[in-house]
Amino acid sequence: MTYLLYYWPGIQGRGEFVRLALEEAGAPYVDVARGREQDGQGVVAMMSILKGRDAPQAPFAPPFLKDGPTIVSHVANILMYLGPRLALSPADEGQRHFLNGLQLTVTDFVSEVHDTHHPLGPSLYYEDQKPEAKTRTADFIKHRIPKFMGYFEAVLAGNRLGAEQCVGDQLTYIDLSLFQAIEGLTYAFPKAMEGFGEKHPRLMALHDAVAKRPNIAAYLASERRIPFNESGIFRRYRELDLS
Amino acid sequence: MTYLLYYWPGIQGRGEFVRLALEEAGAPYVDVARGREQDGQGVVAMMSILKGRDAPQAPFAPPFLKDGPTIVSHVANILMYLGPRLALSPADEGQRHFLNGLQLTVTDFVSEVHDTHHPLGPSLYYEDQKPEAKTRTADFIKHRIPKFMGYFEAVLAGNRLGAEQCVGDQLTYIDLSLFQAIEGLTYAFPKAMEGFGEKHPRLMALHDAVAKRPNIAAYLASERRIPFNESGIFRRYRELDLS
Repeated sequence: MTYLLYYWPGIQGRGEFVRLALEEAGAPYVDVARGREQDGQGVVAMMSILKGRDAPQAPFAPPFLKDGPTIVSHVANILMYLGPRLALSPADEGQRHFLNGLQLTVTDFVSEVHDTHHPLGPSLYYEDQKPEAKTRTADFIKHRIPKFMGYFEAVLAGNRLGAEQCVGDQLTYIDLSLFQAIEGLTYAFPKAMEGFGEKHPRLMALHDAVAKRPNIAAYLASERRIPFNESGIFRRYRELDLS
Repeated sequence: MTYLLYYWPGIQGRGEFVRLALEEAGAPYVDVARGREQDGQGVVAMMSILKGRDAPQAPFAPPFLKDGPTIVSHVANILMYLGPRLALSPADEGQRHFLNGLQLTVTDFVSEVHDTHHPLGPSLYYEDQKPEAKTRTADFIKHRIPKFMGYFEAVLAGNRLGAEQCVGDQLTYIDLSLFQAIEGLTYAFPKAMEGFGEKHPRLMALHDAVAKRPNIAAYLASERRIPFNESGIFRRYRELDLS
C-alpha cells in the first residue's frame, strides 16, 4: 500500500517530520501536493480533501496522511499511526505513549519556533511584527532552546538501554524528529547554536548518527529534500539571531 | 486502579481536559498536587517526578497521568491512553486516530489562547506585553475563533451518525474538551462570544448537553471544579475583549 502524504509543497515545515520517517523506513509514498494536477495531484487535490469534498472527516490543516480510506492528521498522530507499520516505535503500549509524549513535546517546540517570527499571530506578515519577533526570539534563544534541548539531553542520558536513542534499544521516530529540530535550529540561528554540541553531546551524537543512516543520507542528498527557506517553520532572519 | 493526575493546583488549565474525562467516567483518581504534603502529595510530589527523581521517564511538563508504573504526559496523549479504559473512544483504530487528530486541533487552539495574553513568550509577565496582547487577541477573535470553531461545527454537521457528538454514535473525550473550550472562551471573551450559539448551533447544543450529563453537572457544582481565574489558560482581561 502506497501512503499518500499531503503537505504544502515548497517547504519542509511540519511535513518534514513525517517525510523523514517514511524515508528512513523506505516506505512507498507519494508527496501528493508536489505532484502534477494532470495526475490528480497537486495542491488542488490537497485542498479538495481539506474542504471535505472527498472525505467526511476532513482534517483541520496539513500535514495529513491517507492510508487507503483512513485519514490521519497532525504530525504526532501520523507518526503514532505509522510507528508500528514502519517499525519505528516500540511494541509496549506504555512505551508508545512515552514516545508520543516526547513527540508532542517536539510539537510544542515547533509551535514556539513558529512564534519567534510570528508572535502577533499567523495573520500578519513577518515584516509587520519585526520588533516583537526580536523580543520573542531573544527569549526563545535564552530560555526555551536550553529548556527543551536540555530536557531531551536528559532523556537520552536517562535511557538505560543506551543514549544513542530516546526510547528503548532501537531508533524510533522521535530520534528522526530531534535530528530535524537540530538541523532547523542550526539553519535559523547559526550564531545562537555555536557551542550547542558541547552543551548537548548526546543530542549532537544522535543528530550525526541519524544523518549517516543510509536511507536518510540518500534522502538528504536527493531532490526530495526541499532546502530550508523563509516560508517554513525554521527561518533565517539575521536580525533575530544573536549578533 | 486509582489514576494519579498531576497538574498545577489552583487552575483549570490544561489539566481540566483530563479531569473532565475522569469525572464523566466516574473513574477513581487523585488530583495529586492538590493533596497534602503529609500524605505524600502536593506540588512537591509532582516536582519530584518532573525532576526525574522517582521515574526515569520524566515528563517535560504537567499535566501527566500515572497509572501504576506507566507515566503518560500531554493532554491528547493522556486522553488517547484513557479513552479505551474509560469507554470514551471508539473501538476502530482509524476512528481513534481521527479522534486524536481532533483533540490535537484543540491542543493547537489552546496554545493560541495562551498566546493571546503571552504573545512575547512565557517568560514575560502579561503586564509587560499588554499592547502586543491586544494586537494578537484582536486577530484571534476576528480570525482564529471562527476558523477553529467553524471547523468543529462542520465536523459535527458531517457526522453521519448524529451531530450530537463529533465521532461515531457515542460521546467521546473530544466532546468534553469542546465543552471546556466554549466555557473558557465565554469566560475570557464574553463580548466577543455574544451570538456564538447562533453561528454555531451544533457546538452550542453539544456544550449544553455535556453540561447536563449527571456526572459532569455534579462535578461542575463541586469544589473539585476550580473556578476560572487569571493564572490559567482562559483569562478575563477586559481590555482584550471586544468593547
